[in-house]
Amino acid sequence: MKKIVYTFALICFINSSVSAQDAEQRVKTLQLNIPDAPSPIANYVNAVRVGNLLFLSGKGPLGKTGRGKLGADLSIDSGYAAARSAGIAHLAVLRRELGSLNKVKRIVKVTGMVNCTPDFTDQPKVINGYSDLMVEVFGERGKHARSAVGMAGLPDNIAVEVEVIVELETD
Amino acid sequence: MKKIVYTFALICFINSSVSAQDAEQRVKTLQLNIPDAPSPIANYVNAVRVGNLLFLSGKGPLGKTGRGKLGADLSIDSGYAAARSAGIAHLAVLRRELGSLNKVKRIVKVTGMVNCTPDFTDQPKVINGYSDLMVEVFGERGKHARSAVGMAGLPDNIAVEVEVIVELETD
Amino acid sequence: MKKIVYTFALICFINSSVSAQDAEQRVKTLQLNIPDAPSPIANYVNAVRVGNLLFLSGKGPLGKTGRGKLGADLSIDSGYAAARSAGIAHLAVLRRELGSLNKVKRIVKVTGMVNCTPDFTDQPKVINGYSDLMVEVFGERGKHARSAVGMAGLPDNIAVEVEVIVELETD
Repeated sequence: MKKIVYTFALICFINSSVSAQDAEQRVKTLQLNIPDAPSPIANYVNAVRVGNLLFLSGKGPLGKTGRGKLGADLSIDSGYAAARSAGIAHLAVLRRELGSLNKVKRIVKVTGMVNCTPDFTDQPKVINGYSDLMVEVFGERGKHARSAVGMAGLPDNIAVEVEVIVELETD
Repeated sequence: MKKIVYTFALICFINSSVSAQDAEQRVKTLQLNIPDAPSPIANYVNAVRVGNLLFLSGKGPLGKTGRGKLGADLSIDSGYAAARSAGIAHLAVLRRELGSLNKVKRIVKVTGMVNCTPDFTDQPKVINGYSDLMVEVFGERGKHARSAVGMAGLPDNIAVEVEVIVELETD
Repeated sequence: MKKIVYTFALICFINSSVSAQDAEQRVKTLQLNIPDAPSPIANYVNAVRVGNLLFLSGKGPLGKTGRGKLGADLSIDSGYAAARSAGIAHLAVLRRELGSLNKVKRIVKVTGMVNCTPDFTDQPKVINGYSDLMVEVFGERGKHARSAVGMAGLPDNIAVEVEVIVELETD
């Protein structure tokens, strides 16, 4: 009986160790191309840490992709792709700030803001592009509290802007 | 003199104990009907805890109530009711996450998002439906920092979506 | 050698002391006129503290200035001034809550919400009015994570509403 308990404890330990350290591995498996994070060009920064919380600046899709309004210019699939791209932008910031994505303990809170027409009501289907990516990369610890809402307009006409708060592993 | 001090200390203790533990009692007195909290059907969750902070997902009015835009489809009173209903939805989440509303130490920060026409300017009167409920249930500890703002659109055309950050009693 | 180390340590200490304590001095140098912070007139408050984090309520421009929509009623310069004025309103709240702006350790996270038409895409240029003020007053510690987004409408038709989370010096 004792042996079973020990074995079970060992398995739990191994499991939690693996899941704690494989975000970078998953990025490789998923063949995600994470670029270098650019620095903002105004009086703000990509991220600020307080204790074990990291507050990230809102990000839109990478490069010049994902422009336009949902409900007018873009399909839900295109919006989903734009939200996923904003997620890649946040992964880039996290890697730059932390050195490795494996230092992420939990994706805590996501605010998904969708550039849309007044009659558009599928904001969650768009922001799923971001949420799905986080779970692909971080597993259970990628599951977050979330809002998905519709904006009158966004900078440079990006289709989505996403904010996120992340909990970090203690050093 | 010593007796007065002791009596005063005792009264303070009783007062603080009562106010710390009566949120569930107030729910009964107010005859609030708090349903079970449903689970999200995507890659996100109702709430994430970090230390003594609980970040809740945005919620709209319960069931199929509170649909439409302020400034076009709904009166301020209807919007107020929708915001109160979103508050009930958050109470349901808190009860599910914590077991009891008495574990709430403070309602910290509320972001009240109102689905509205561009000329609507009474977002605070709408979100008061949420704020008033929190103070009815939690008393002084229900008073929060807040924003009340107008959105281009919301999921399923809900009239309001509210986010909240809650401080928890330490175990 | 020991002497050099001590001198270096002393310089570091003086430097950090100065930068930690000169926000109020900078306000004087900048000749900023910070009014008294008014109390909200509903069931919410100006700010809630949890540990060393202070969550502030959203604020718009002071008094009756800065009304209208970007993209229709107001130039970017006027929007920038409105965002700066919202920043002054937050400085007023911080002074009231903390006694002195020198107790601010870091401006952590800013959510800049711009009242705008659907075709407006220069939200960052508007919210720079807020960000620039924070860096003028707090220096490097004024640099924050940020979002700048467009709203369908705002209370009393204010041009901007800004939320902020602040880290406090430990007592």
